Amino acid sequence: MMAKTVQTIEDIARLANVSKSTVSRALNDSPLINQETRERIQSLAREYNFRINAPARNLSMRQSHTLGFVSYACSGKNFSAENMFGLELLGGVSDGLRPLGYDLLVVPVEPHDTTWAHQYLNSGRVDGFVLTISTRKQKMINELVNMGIPFILWGFPQPNSSFCTVCGDDVTGGRIATEYLIRTGRQHIGFLGGPMDEIEVKYRHHGYELALQNAGRYLDPDLVVYGDYSHTSGITAMKRLLEQKPDLDAVFVNSDVMALGAIQYIQSCGKRVPEDIAVVGYDDLLLARYNNLPITTIRQNIPLAGKLLAENLIQYIQTGVVTNVNLPVELVIRKTA
Amino acid sequence: MMAKTVQTIEDIARLANVSKSTVSRALNDSPLINQETRERIQSLAREYNFRINAPARNLSMRQSHTLGFVSYACSGKNFSAENMFGLELLGGVSDGLRPLGYDLLVVPVEPHDTTWAHQYLNSGRVDGFVLTISTRKQKMINELVNMGIPFILWGFPQPNSSFCTVCGDDVTGGRIATEYLIRTGRQHIGFLGGPMDEIEVKYRHHGYELALQNAGRYLDPDLVVYGDYSHTSGITAMKRLLEQKPDLDAVFVNSDVMALGAIQYIQSCGKRVPEDIAVVGYDDLLLARYNNLPITTIRQNIPLAGKLLAENLIQYIQTGVVTNVNLPVELVIRKTA
Repeated sequence: MMAKTVQTIEDIARLANVSKSTVSRALNDSPLINQETRERIQSLAREYNFRINAPARNLSMRQSHTLGFVSYACSGKNFSAENMFGLELLGGVSDGLRPLGYDLLVVPVEPHDTTWAHQYLNSGRVDGFVLTISTRKQKMINELVNMGIPFILWGFPQPNSSFCTVCGDDVTGGRIATEYLIRTGRQHIGFLGGPMDEIEVKYRHHGYELALQNAGRYLDPDLVVYGDYSHTSGITAMKRLLEQKPDLDAVFVNSDVMALGAIQYIQSCGKRVPEDIAVVGYDDLLLARYNNLPITTIRQNIPLAGKLLAENLIQYIQTGVVTNVNLPVELVIRKTA
Repeated sequence: MMAKTVQTIEDIARLANVSKSTVSRALNDSPLINQETRERIQSLAREYNFRINAPARNLSMRQSHTLGFVSYACSGKNFSAENMFGLELLGGVSDGLRPLGYDLLVVPVEPHDTTWAHQYLNSGRVDGFVLTISTRKQKMINELVNMGIPFILWGFPQPNSSFCTVCGDDVTGGRIATEYLIRTGRQHIGFLGGPMDEIEVKYRHHGYELALQNAGRYLDPDLVVYGDYSHTSGITAMKRLLEQKPDLDAVFVNSDVMALGAIQYIQSCGKRVPEDIAVVGYDDLLLARYNNLPITTIRQNIPLAGKLLAENLIQYIQTGVVTNVNLPVELVIRKTA
């Protein structure tokens, strides 16, 4: 007499008189198996208390139901102070994956390493990757595309390249921030950018220029200074901007963290925010909302971005359909402008 | 002639004339295999371009080299605004795991579900779990202990229970915050707590009482109000505290996020921080440092906490040694007190 418990897919296959792959597919609800066979196998599995083992299932189905969230391992710290955006986005992607039955694996990579993608993918640990702002250097993306790695990028699509993206509408962001400052009577509106070579920063700058041009304003290069999104760079860039333009009365800053640095510098000069200098940030991080002087900012909807990154990458893995999403941004008026 | 490539551990085992488990151990650098055999097998694997497959390795070695970071899936959001501490701790644990060659899997669980631990562990997806502040209800911990699940808790050890913990020194935290307020001349020092039934909150309150008693002060129950760590609860609890004690001139708040809410309410009453009411927060989150009015707070060293949670859980999995760590806290004096 056979004990009412079985150990492996082989046992179930023998009992059902089908192949191992049929058992594996049936237990994973694969549409490749007809309903009658599927139900017969699932019923046998229940009867014999058989639980499919996830790595074993991965080996046969080549699906881990896990996505990798790629972050740079910089000097031992993936989630540095400057990467609050990345941390909130990670939370958003995790929340977005939950209802889909997927898990999120944090994948820290070295900036110049390109072997990780195949390692994680071929070993069946993840089905694809979410690349975020700090990990989407051109070179890496090109390599991932060439290697045929499934991924989705937080950032802009590239011409002649076909991969999934979700990005914010940076031109509109730069434009509405600047229009608001013009509308509220500001005369000398500075632009305090993130890294000058980033496409997002170029687009935000383009939006800034559009708003000024539409208002018939002169584009003064002395009003434009770049930093690197960090709090420290917000302080130093603001210092330079005020040296170049002492009569500055407003500034559009490319991140909330930088904006906090800029505000700190402005106040250290004895000037008031927003009375003397109005400040508009970018991102709408929690620290913008909770700041003691709540920051007027351009909201990137991070929970929605996380949800779309999760859903569209899974859709791509399942169907091969490439999606490129441009997320709307909105002005959130608080106390700094 | 045999092609210079092999597919499975069995092939290598045949070539090396050893068992499959010996191959598996050798390729995983197990000290159970003597050096000569290990090197011979590794050399064969290199020669035949054999790469061990992670799920296959997990099946044989029962080690995924992945830890699960458990978070509650509350109304679809694991990383809610109120859980900035959890998000920073996740970053700290991930950073701590990196040099150890471990990955971090985000494991969102439903509050009343207890099946997840066995599911993730038995399927070989993780080797153990990190439980954080929001997921360490007594009932869940007891069940994990009874089930023999390897885990480490951010929080206090329990009497008669033997599991790994890392916690902050909350009594000292409450004491040094209060001593500082006494030393800087404050007369009516409020306590704005997190949830009243949490052991951390009880300990912080104990530290607060100790400092007042040591200074010969009267313990006024009207000076003590509780919230739930959230920004909103900071506002409402501060309101109640000021209604009960209009002459309040200082408050020790149990989280930085709550402190931001308390400061917002104080300022909305036309009172100044710190001139009229001094505020000391808790945690030293990034938003305390970057706040426009940088918050004087009790620092819990989150990067160090993450590193210890990572290292001590792995140590426990490997050796069975239970560690309980009480992390020192320190007062960081900024602008709110």
